[in-house]
Amino acid sequence: MKDQGSLNLQFAQHLIDGLVIAGLKHAVISPGSRSSALTLVCERHKAIQTYVQIDERCAAFFALGLARENNQPVVVISTSGSAPGHWLPAIIEANHSGVPLILLSADRPPELLACGANQTIDQTHLFGNQVRHFYQLPLAEGTDKQKQYLNQLGQRVINESKLPLPGPVHLNIPFREPLLPEVDNFIYKNNSALSPVVNSYPLITLSEQQCEQLVQRLDAGKGVIVAGPDSHHPERAQAIIQLAHKLNVPVLADPLSGIRFGKHVTEHVLTHYDAFLRNRDFSIQQPEWMLRFGAMPVSKALGQYLQSCKHTHHILVDSYGRWRDPNHQLAELITCDVIQFCQQLLSYEFINTNSEWLDKFTQEEQATRLRASEACDESLLIQSLIKQLPDESLIFSSNSLAVRELDSFSACDTKPLSIIANRGASGIDGNISTLAGLAAARKKSGQKGKVVGLIGDLACYHDMNGLLAAGEQELIIIVINNGGGGIFYHLPQSSLTEFEQDWLTPHNLDFSKVASLYDIEFYRAETVDAFPELFEQALSKKSCQMIELIIDPEQSLQQHKKYWQTCTN
Amino acid sequence: MKDQGSLNLQFAQHLIDGLVIAGLKHAVISPGSRSSALTLVCERHKAIQTYVQIDERCAAFFALGLARENNQPVVVISTSGSAPGHWLPAIIEANHSGVPLILLSADRPPELLACGANQTIDQTHLFGNQVRHFYQLPLAEGTDKQKQYLNQLGQRVINESKLPLPGPVHLNIPFREPLLPEVDNFIYKNNSALSPVVNSYPLITLSEQQCEQLVQRLDAGKGVIVAGPDSHHPERAQAIIQLAHKLNVPVLADPLSGIRFGKHVTEHVLTHYDAFLRNRDFSIQQPEWMLRFGAMPVSKALGQYLQSCKHTHHILVDSYGRWRDPNHQLAELITCDVIQFCQQLLSYEFINTNSEWLDKFTQEEQATRLRASEACDESLLIQSLIKQLPDESLIFSSNSLAVRELDSFSACDTKPLSIIANRGASGIDGNISTLAGLAAARKKSGQKGKVVGLIGDLACYHDMNGLLAAGEQELIIIVINNGGGGIFYHLPQSSLTEFEQDWLTPHNLDFSKVASLYDIEFYRAETVDAFPELFEQALSKKSCQMIELIIDPEQSLQQHKKYWQTCTN
Repeated sequence: MKDQGSLNLQFAQHLIDGLVIAGLKHAVISPGSRSSALTLVCERHKAIQTYVQIDERCAAFFALGLARENNQPVVVISTSGSAPGHWLPAIIEANHSGVPLILLSADRPPELLACGANQTIDQTHLFGNQVRHFYQLPLAEGTDKQKQYLNQLGQRVINESKLPLPGPVHLNIPFREPLLPEVDNFIYKNNSALSPVVNSYPLITLSEQQCEQLVQRLDAGKGVIVAGPDSHHPERAQAIIQLAHKLNVPVLADPLSGIRFGKHVTEHVLTHYDAFLRNRDFSIQQPEWMLRFGAMPVSKALGQYLQSCKHTHHILVDSYGRWRDPNHQLAELITCDVIQFCQQLLSYEFINTNSEWLDKFTQEEQATRLRASEACDESLLIQSLIKQLPDESLIFSSNSLAVRELDSFSACDTKPLSIIANRGASGIDGNISTLAGLAAARKKSGQKGKVVGLIGDLACYHDMNGLLAAGEQELIIIVINNGGGGIFYHLPQSSLTEFEQDWLTPHNLDFSKVASLYDIEFYRAETVDAFPELFEQALSKKSCQMIELIIDPEQSLQQHKKYWQTCTN
Repeated sequence: MKDQGSLNLQFAQHLIDGLVIAGLKHAVISPGSRSSALTLVCERHKAIQTYVQIDERCAAFFALGLARENNQPVVVISTSGSAPGHWLPAIIEANHSGVPLILLSADRPPELLACGANQTIDQTHLFGNQVRHFYQLPLAEGTDKQKQYLNQLGQRVINESKLPLPGPVHLNIPFREPLLPEVDNFIYKNNSALSPVVNSYPLITLSEQQCEQLVQRLDAGKGVIVAGPDSHHPERAQAIIQLAHKLNVPVLADPLSGIRFGKHVTEHVLTHYDAFLRNRDFSIQQPEWMLRFGAMPVSKALGQYLQSCKHTHHILVDSYGRWRDPNHQLAELITCDVIQFCQQLLSYEFINTNSEWLDKFTQEEQATRLRASEACDESLLIQSLIKQLPDESLIFSSNSLAVRELDSFSACDTKPLSIIANRGASGIDGNISTLAGLAAARKKSGQKGKVVGLIGDLACYHDMNGLLAAGEQELIIIVINNGGGGIFYHLPQSSLTEFEQDWLTPHNLDFSKVASLYDIEFYRAETVDAFPELFEQALSKKSCQMIELIIDPEQSLQQHKKYWQTCTN
């Protein structure tokens, strides 16, 4: 019979062996005693890259960033008590944006629960229905039967974090003391006897009959493709554009759709719809059909346009069959892999397409693009960003204003760039940590290009603890400082007496001090004119850089209003 | 028919009227759009003091501090999406330490749920069984019937946050757009028609028969009273000490018991048991009975002593009947108000008490107190703290080492002081925010004395965002900087190769920069000798002050080991 510490280590190893054989490569660990066996096994496992983060809230968002970039599940480890509770915001985001996470919370053994033992809470189902699955694991027993169970469970939870809908899976793992063997003689041995379960992923396609019906529908009239936020695959972007060409229709491409930047970009890709759809003379025109991919787009004007298209046949294509339709106007929900969908349709002939409909859109796009180029400080910022970034760079955007400015002013280009955001729950939380996780993953995989965060000042403050990890990465954080929740200036609450105190909530932080605290090189652009040169300097560095751009929120609002007005006249 | 915005405001007012009539006085608000009606009503309600906090995690811990100090429920308000998710750690703490909180999460209306609308997640039962109750509220209807429902619900949830066991209650409240009326003409009108539900609180006492049986038991042999962490009431402390006198037994008083400091303190109060119970020659003596109040004590040595008392009759008195016994050795669980319990027993005669048993304990206590006074840097720090603080001051301690040092070295005194900690889940989280909430509550109530936080460097980093609110309070934060998770030096993990990276996790933050970022006056004590003078300076100020005390963790461990050794020889 082995001692308890050795049993704990062995138990952790059997589980983690299962995870690794199914593809695990990264683990984010927060310090603690109860989780020691899990930590030590991950640390000594050659296949796992570990990252240590003190604040569990940051750890989980960092893991989210890693998992998003790698498109692979990442393990997160914490000790018992309130520690795993800090994961909830990142779990909510992972759940809603479909990012695979494997959450391993260490726990006290059952006999210490609910009897006043220290750092002990009920950790079962701690995240309710925000996780895909929850498993309460047994204590270490050291039997062959348990080894087999753990090996297979590890593989199983990796699978469940990806299928049928990617997301977080929570395993709660009790450990009895002593937590580790008295003498440290644990060397990780490769478990060559372990063979992976062969896992056949489903290919979701259309039947011939479905295709023919669709072709008939799409060939019968004017249409619009709307590409909303989605994970980025050059192949999918290309497939959607090819379909748009074949149908001769515009693609209203969200900044997070993965379609605005890359070699596939043609005149079919439209990006200034948030402005030109505000023109009632134009938006009165409704397509006969609308084909949507991805989540609901960022643009409010586009959302309202969709809603106004009451006589349009609305089709949504989603790989996971998600009912993404807050307007409740869906006519068809097609559950199908998007590339498959496009490629199947591309093999048909469409005879009724004509250029007139498309031309109306492209003319508006071109006219608006000219007006947009000098519309406001933010448009200058974003153009400079897009222009100066090297190929293959990644822009991570915070929600609220940052992503809306990208929507309005990024335009599109054949230069390959990625723009992503945490658009699952669209919170202002966890942005710095997600950015750091993305940068760490790209560094590890040797990805070319730069990593840039476009972060509002409130979002930066909300996840300031994330700077501890961000400071160690090669990335550039652009803080758009408009003195608080600038987006509220765009809302009716801005006329209230209590506006500043309760909605705008200025924090008055000096970001040069924030940067200095974390040894991050700092630049301040008092006006947007100063930005390009500072950004050029930051781009030449290999460490973490922060550029603060000061924006006057009231002036910005006036500039935006003026711009929208010129688009509607 | 009123417009939607007015209906929303009216709805919020009816609910908050109910809360106020049942005693609500404080609301902590995080900025957001969906929660606008709740925010505006609280802001304009004369009976409610509002506090605005950007980071919802801090907001909830700040509310916990307010609620602890006032012993009254506090409202916390957030917008929809991942925002309320940040409350979970504070909710876990409130649940386990029995602190009443009323959580109001604004939500989108049902027709926008689960269909891809922005910032929308399933918020029902978001906190699982960590809250006492969950209510999903309806949409605003503007009927008299709904008004009555909301008025009573407000009163009801205040009651449920206090009885039968204080804790958090969650209300999820959907609002349709427009969220507020177009023209702001809302003035809060006092709802004089509303009459409070008369609420008779239960008085939990012992029957005569129960008393007689207990007297028989307690009078028959040597006993020990153990007073664990509990909320502080001078009356209760006094009642326990009077009982100890009558029974002529020692009280092993935890630093968080509320018994170590105050006019009630006599030689019956022992505080150095963590050291002298390590002496096997002494701890071999087992009492015939053990009477426990409050939670399990902080001291590990005391915990082990309790466990070793296998032939002792273990009695636990708990006002809420909580089964607080991780050693599984309980003979009697008495559900009774502690003051009632003591006072009822005090009316009986005890004839078999003698001083010999008590003397053994008091001799050990006195001898250890002498050794403790110069045991280590921490003992000097804590003696200085206790000596220099004015009467009625409050010390809030972080968990891990800080509270253990207080346990070992605070001793006791007739000077009235309070020492508290978040001992529900004993996390390293939320400490700065809880401290700020405590200070805000004491300021509001005009409480005398100073507020001091004794915070480890890791705990300070974990809740650094809390400094935004703490910086506005009159308080002193003492950061004990031992370069990371110093407590891990006391654990077996310290011998591992990966110890520093995975357990100690030094962050290398310069706390002078932390203080400067938040405009907090800063002092650094490179050695403990420098502390008293710096502390004196800080005590003379009316704003937020931070003193960093540098502790060499390895030297500290050696000092502690030596001290414990002298106590066991």
